[in-house]
This record gives sequence, structure tokens and C-alpha cells, in this order.
Amino acid sequence: MSAQQLVGVIGRGVFPAGHLVISADDLGFTRGDGCFDATRVVTRAGGSSTVENLDAHFDRFDASIVGVGGDPINRDAWRETIDQALSQWTSPGEAVLKIMYSNGQETQTLGAGADRPTEVFTLTQMSAGNIADRAGVEVITLNRGMSSTAFADAPWLLGGVKSLAYAVNIAAKREAHRRGAGDVLFTSSDGYVLEAPTSALVALIDGVLVTTPIEGTGILNSITQRMVFAAAEAEGYTTDQLLMTPAQVIDGDGAWFLSSVRGVVPILSLDGTALPLHSDLTERLRRWARFTD
Amino acid sequence: MSAQQLVGVIGRGVFPAGHLVISADDLGFTRGDGCFDATRVVTRAGGSSTVENLDAHFDRFDASIVGVGGDPINRDAWRETIDQALSQWTSPGEAVLKIMYSNGQETQTLGAGADRPTEVFTLTQMSAGNIADRAGVEVITLNRGMSSTAFADAPWLLGGVKSLAYAVNIAAKREAHRRGAGDVLFTSSDGYVLEAPTSALVALIDGVLVTTPIEGTGILNSITQRMVFAAAEAEGYTTDQLLMTPAQVIDGDGAWFLSSVRGVVPILSLDGTALPLHSDLTERLRRWARFTD
Repeated sequence: MSAQQLVGVIGRGVFPAGHLVISADDLGFTRGDGCFDATRVVTRAGGSSTVENLDAHFDRFDASIVGVGGDPINRDAWRETIDQALSQWTSPGEAVLKIMYSNGQETQTLGAGADRPTEVFTLTQMSAGNIADRAGVEVITLNRGMSSTAFADAPWLLGGVKSLAYAVNIAAKREAHRRGAGDVLFTSSDGYVLEAPTSALVALIDGVLVTTPIEGTGILNSITQRMVFAAAEAEGYTTDQLLMTPAQVIDGDGAWFLSSVRGVVPILSLDGTALPLHSDLTERLRRWARFTD
Repeated sequence: MSAQQLVGVIGRGVFPAGHLVISADDLGFTRGDGCFDATRVVTRAGGSSTVENLDAHFDRFDASIVGVGGDPINRDAWRETIDQALSQWTSPGEAVLKIMYSNGQETQTLGAGADRPTEVFTLTQMSAGNIADRAGVEVITLNRGMSSTAFADAPWLLGGVKSLAYAVNIAAKREAHRRGAGDVLFTSSDGYVLEAPTSALVALIDGVLVTTPIEGTGILNSITQRMVFAAAEAEGYTTDQLLMTPAQVIDGDGAWFLSSVRGVVPILSLDGTALPLHSDLTERLRRWARFTD
């Protein structure tokens, strides 16, 4: 069966696109009080599918859930409903599995979901926009308003938590589109580059593959970046974590956004200045990220 | 008919508590990409209800919606569905009307909500916690991580927008409860008091009623604070907007949290230091906020 989207409700089953599964007082909707994670699903010609790095995404999902006050998920229950969706998902190509958790209904004593968290996922055909981005994007910097040390010892700021409260990330992308760019590189109030709204930054500077440190900056712990750095190190590359200015990125030898969904996205320009394209390394990064199929 | 919660879907009608009205790919759920507003509903002995300051809340709701890229609402359509809910809501007492908007389904070409925003509300009995808070709360300061000028010229940070992405506000309240306090007063990274997660701050300092300025700080434009200041000025009080430190609040002659739902909440202590209680002024603030019934 071919479909553009399937919706899973853990423990309840799989539903068609647009099925209403969330109440109006769900804390995920009313407050963004929850979290998510997302990864790529690859479906082969015969109709069988592989979910990429599901355990690594479950690990990060659990860490996010604990960050918003919840308990780790029952992975067997999640796998069972995901498998049920995959068995109905047979069109060859790429899709996105987005797993979502919220702290349940605000008025916990009311309704069917009382005292239970909300656990749902969507399985959606990879968008044309995500595929087009792999050729490269024009990027602008936007100030995220917080210093590169703001998140140290401030767990209530939810640094590193992939929370459902992504409105600023979406508003920043909207601002980029308004300015004719394709994506955003957030900067800290003290002038360092952080991450993109839905991707990590990797740059090649003086022969070293560098990314933003997590500690203090509140950025997400990128699964794709970690996988790429591990593979790069195994092939003799040097890697590092470094607070960089936009000028350092522009003066470097190439920069990329990495994400589990979009894969490896070369940054074509930053604030209007063209960046060096390093197509050899782009191909290597894709191989290390396992995005070559 | 008595009920603890009713759910309204604009243009579709009124449903019982827990009714599922939101899809799993609704941008309000997946990203917090939407906004809300909330006000008090007072139901009299005969069963008729008054929604407090609905137009002022519609005004701020529209400003929030524009802030997240949407168009102002059709107030007649909203009023019609709200009236339908009020006609079923006859138990005397207080309730909360929470109006919510999201930018619709993420996968806009799929499902029933295609190309439409999501417009829903809940009408919920006032919680015991909100009523208890009116006797006063113990408050801790928590750093919001952003300077008091961070929001100037940075609309993508959604300053003043009452967005659905309130996860940090909820996490901060969770941190307060963990520390044995009842509420939070956010501070800026440069050391000024801002607002509470769901309330504005008003303090009496040197005989002047003061609140945090909106410009640059990103705080919400409080309807209750504006109403209170207008009434106070009419009775000869002096009011001002001022960036204050926590020490200035502690050394002042009293401080309160104001909100359309909780009304006037005296701050009993700030970071463990008792604040002066000014019960005469508390009663005046309640009258000015029209919370004396």
C-alpha cells in the first residue's frame, strides 16, 4: 500500500494521515511540554524498510523525556507500533519517522488520557524540500539571544532537550525565507555560531573537522555529527569541538549542516559570502553519515 | 449542565473533555508553532456567564498570531462557538477560557485540515491551585538566559508573543516546585527581573507602582497590569516601567504577580527573603483588576 503519511499511537495502533489523536488540553499542544526525535526510514524495492539508528534516537528521546520530567519509554511497545506502520509502508524511497512524547493532558483528571503521557509518531514521505537542500543552501546568521554559557547549570532552559517548543526555530526559518535564504545558523549573544534550527554545524578549519561544543551552549547532541566524526577519526581525520565565530566559518575550507533527516547539506554562502565548496569531503561526509543510497 | 471542561473547535462545535481534535502533525503539537491567550469566565447563580475582557484578549491573540506568521481571526466565528459553550456552562463559579491557534498541519496537503490553521479553545473550571495562589506564593528567581535587550530588533525570538512553545516556562515552574517554592520570577542574564512564567510583575517602590518594560525584554504585554495601572492612575497613584534588580524588589514595599486567570497574587518571599505584605494595596489591586467577586 502506498501512502504519504501514517500516524501511530503507541499501544493503540496505526491510523491514516490527518486522524485526530491529540486532545485540545494536551500539554504538548497547549505548552510544547514534551519532546520529539526524528530519523530517516529507507524502503527498498521489495517493500522492506530500515529505520536508521533507531536505538540512538530512542536514547536521545529518553534523555529529552527525562529533561521534561517524564520517564523513559517502553521501547518494545514503541517498536511494536512502529513495525505495524512499516508493514503498511512499502513504496520504495525515503521517509521520516518522527517520534513524539508529551506530558499528557493538562487537566489530568479528565478524559481518556488521564495520568498517561501522550506517545505518538508520524511516518511521512521525505519532502522534496529536504531532498533539494542536499544540493546546498544559502544561510544567514540570526542571534539566538543567549550567551554560549547560558545553559550551564540551568536545566530549566532545556538545553539539549529536543522539546516540542520549537516555535523560535520555525520563526527563524520563516525570517530566512523572508530574506531569500534557505536556512539559519544561530549565533550566541557573545558572537559564536551554534547550530541550525534542525541541524548541527560541521566545518573544516585548518584541516580539522570541527563542531560546536554542547556544554553551556544548549545545542542538541547530534547523532549524525557523532557518527560522522567517529567514522572520520577511523579514517585518520582530526576532529574537535570549538566555539567559532561566523568569520572563522567563512574563512574555513567548507561547512555543512548535518541532520538525521536531511543528511549532509553543504552551506553555499553565509550572510551573502560564498563558502568554499569541498565536494570530495561532501561525498565522504555522506558516506560517513550513511546517506549514499 | 455541569462540566469540568468543554472543548470548542471554531466552526465545528463544542465537544466533551478529552475529545480528540488535533492531528499528530499539527504544527502546534509538533513545533509549538502557534499561540494562545487565556481569560477568566465568571458564571453567576442563574447560570449566565461573563467572559472578562474578551476583546482585549482577542487583540493580543491577533498580535501573537501575526507574530507567528498567521492572519487575524474571524471574531464572529470565535464568538459563536464560545457562546455555544457558555450556553452549556451553567455551574456558578470561575472558569478559564483558553483560546488557541496553530499554523495547521505540518503536511499541509494531507488530511482534513489542509491549508487551514487550527483554532480551538478549552473552557475549564478554575483550578484549586489558581485559587489557593491568591493568598500569596513563595517565589524563586531563575535566569531566563537572555539579556534585557535581547528581543530588540529580533522578531524571530517571538518576544511578546504568547506562543504555544511554553516548555521553558513549565520546566521553570517544575524547578520551583522541586525547590519547595510556588512560582518563578524570571531574571535577565544582565540581572533584572522580568516576569513570571504565566504572570506579570508589579512592585511598589518609593510609593510608585512599577512593572518591567516590554521593549527589548520580550515579556508579555499584560492585560491585567495595564488595566490595574490605568485604574491606579485614575485614583492618583504614580506608575512607571522600570528595569529592577531582585534586591530592589526585596527592598520595596510589596510585590505581586498579576494575571487574567489568577488575578492578584501577593509575593510572600523572594529567594527566601520575606517581602513586606501590603494588604490594603492588595485589596485595591484586586478591585482595579476586577477580581473582587
